Amino acid sequence: MTASAKDFANTHPSEIWEMIRSGQWTGPTPGMAKGYVQANLVVLPKDWAYDFMVFAQRNPKPCPVLDITEPGDPEPRMVAPGADLRTDLPKYRVWENGKLVAEPTDIRPYWRDDLVAFLLGCSFSFESALIEASIPIRHIECSCNVPMYITNIQCKPAGRLSGPMVVSMRPIPAPMVPKAVLATGRFPAVHGAPVHIGDPALIGIKDISRPDFGDPVPINDGEIPVFWACGVTPQAALMASNVPFAITHAPGHMFICSVKDADYAVF
Amino acid sequence: MTASAKDFANTHPSEIWEMIRSGQWTGPTPGMAKGYVQANLVVLPKDWAYDFMVFAQRNPKPCPVLDITEPGDPEPRMVAPGADLRTDLPKYRVWENGKLVAEPTDIRPYWRDDLVAFLLGCSFSFESALIEASIPIRHIECSCNVPMYITNIQCKPAGRLSGPMVVSMRPIPAPMVPKAVLATGRFPAVHGAPVHIGDPALIGIKDISRPDFGDPVPINDGEIPVFWACGVTPQAALMASNVPFAITHAPGHMFICSVKDADYAVF
Repeated sequence: MTASAKDFANTHPSEIWEMIRSGQWTGPTPGMAKGYVQANLVVLPKDWAYDFMVFAQRNPKPCPVLDITEPGDPEPRMVAPGADLRTDLPKYRVWENGKLVAEPTDIRPYWRDDLVAFLLGCSFSFESALIEASIPIRHIECSCNVPMYITNIQCKPAGRLSGPMVVSMRPIPAPMVPKAVLATGRFPAVHGAPVHIGDPALIGIKDISRPDFGDPVPINDGEIPVFWACGVTPQAALMASNVPFAITHAPGHMFICSVKDADYAVF
Repeated sequence: MTASAKDFANTHPSEIWEMIRSGQWTGPTPGMAKGYVQANLVVLPKDWAYDFMVFAQRNPKPCPVLDITEPGDPEPRMVAPGADLRTDLPKYRVWENGKLVAEPTDIRPYWRDDLVAFLLGCSFSFESALIEASIPIRHIECSCNVPMYITNIQCKPAGRLSGPMVVSMRPIPAPMVPKAVLATGRFPAVHGAPVHIGDPALIGIKDISRPDFGDPVPINDGEIPVFWACGVTPQAALMASNVPFAITHAPGHMFICSVKDADYAVF
C-alpha cells in the first residue's frame, strides 16, 4: 500500500523534512502537517534579489514574503530553523533565461554562494481558514488543482521585474461570499482578502472554463467566482523578465514551515 | 502672528509639499493634513538598501516599509505621486559613518544616482486610531514628544545590520488597554498592536522616567505603560551598524504621504 499525503496530516514539519531529505517522500505536499504554513520557494542570485524584494514590497497581495535567507545560506531561520531548502522540498524546478531546464529532487548540485532563497505565503493557509468557516472549496471537493488565471491587472514594476497579476479562483455560494472575504482578510501575510469578486471579464479573464494554470472547476447556480492574488505571480514575473537563473518549487511540491497558519492571523 | 501646524490640519498633502518646498514651512509636521499618513524617511546608497530591506522584512513591527523609490528617483510613486523627497520634508539629517554631519532643509546638494529612499510607517497613524477610540494620549495632553526607550529585545539581524528594538510608551488607563490593543492591531502596516504591556523591566527598561529619546511623561495611578515598536529602531540600527552615508528626516519633521491612515487598516 502506498502512503498518501493525508497519512502525514499530523506529522511534525521537522519529520517531514527528514522524510523528504532521505528520499522517502517525493510527492505533492497538500494535506501534510495540517495547520503548518506551506510556502512557495523562489531562489535567485543576489544580483536579482533586490529587484525581487522591491517587487514584492510593491505587490504584497500576490507576493507575501515570509522569509529571506542570507546569501549562500540554505536555512530559513525565521520560519523553519533546522531545515535545508536545498533538500527538504520534494521537487524543484531549475530555470535558465526563463526556460525550465531541470526538475530535480535535490538542488545541492545547483547551489551557489550568491543564492538567496525567498519563501512566499501560499493559499493553502487561507484555505484552512475557509474550511474552518464551513465554506466549501470546489477544487478540494473535485480532488484537482485550483484554477489560476492571468489577469489584466498589472503588477507595479520594480527594477527589471514586471508582469501581470495571476489569481486563483474559488466558486463560493453567494450568501457565503462576505464570510469568505472576512475569513481570508484576517491573513494579509498569505494573500489576504480577495482581489476581485464576480464578473471575470472585469479583470480580463475571457473564458473562466479555461484557466491558464491548474484545472477548470464547475461554477454551480447561485455561486459567485471569487478571485485571490496567487503566489504564481512572482514566478510568472521572473520568467517574463528573463531572469538568467532561478530555482522554484515544482507546483504542489511546497516547503512546509515550522510556523503555523494561525501565527499569521492579524486578529 | 506665526502659523502653527494645526492651522494646516485640513490642508491637502500636495499643498503642504509646495509650502515646504518653497521654504514657507520648516517646522515639525504633527497635526498637519489630518488623516493622511506621515512617514519616517531613510535614504541609503543602493549598496546598503538590500540589507535594509531584509532587516525590515525580518523586523516588520518596528520597520513597516510603505514605499521604496527606484535608485536615483526622488519620487515616492506608491504613496505620494508628484512629491519630491529631496525638498518636501521640512528638515533632514545627513549622517556619515554613524555621525550627524548636517541638518539641511533641502537635500538636493547631497542627492546621488545610487540613492534609494525608504518611507516607513509612523505612530502618528495609529495615534489617530487611539484618539478615535476615545483613548487619551499623554504626550499629546502634555504637548511634548512621545517617550522612547531602547529595549533588550534584539532585532533579527540582516547582513551588516543589527540593533535593539526601540519602543514608544503611552500610559493607558487599565480598563482601556484591551481597546488600545485592538484599535492599533488593525494597523499592522504602521507598527500594529503593542509589543509589550506592563512591567518595563521585562523588556530591559530600567527607569521609565528617563527615556532614551523624546520626553518623559507621568504615569498616573491606575494606568499601565503600553509599549509599541518604534520607527526610530531602523535609524538606530543604521547608526549602530556604521553605515557610511545616510539621510533621514529630522525628528518630528516627517514626510506627509497622499495616502490616508485608513488605507492601512486591515479590517
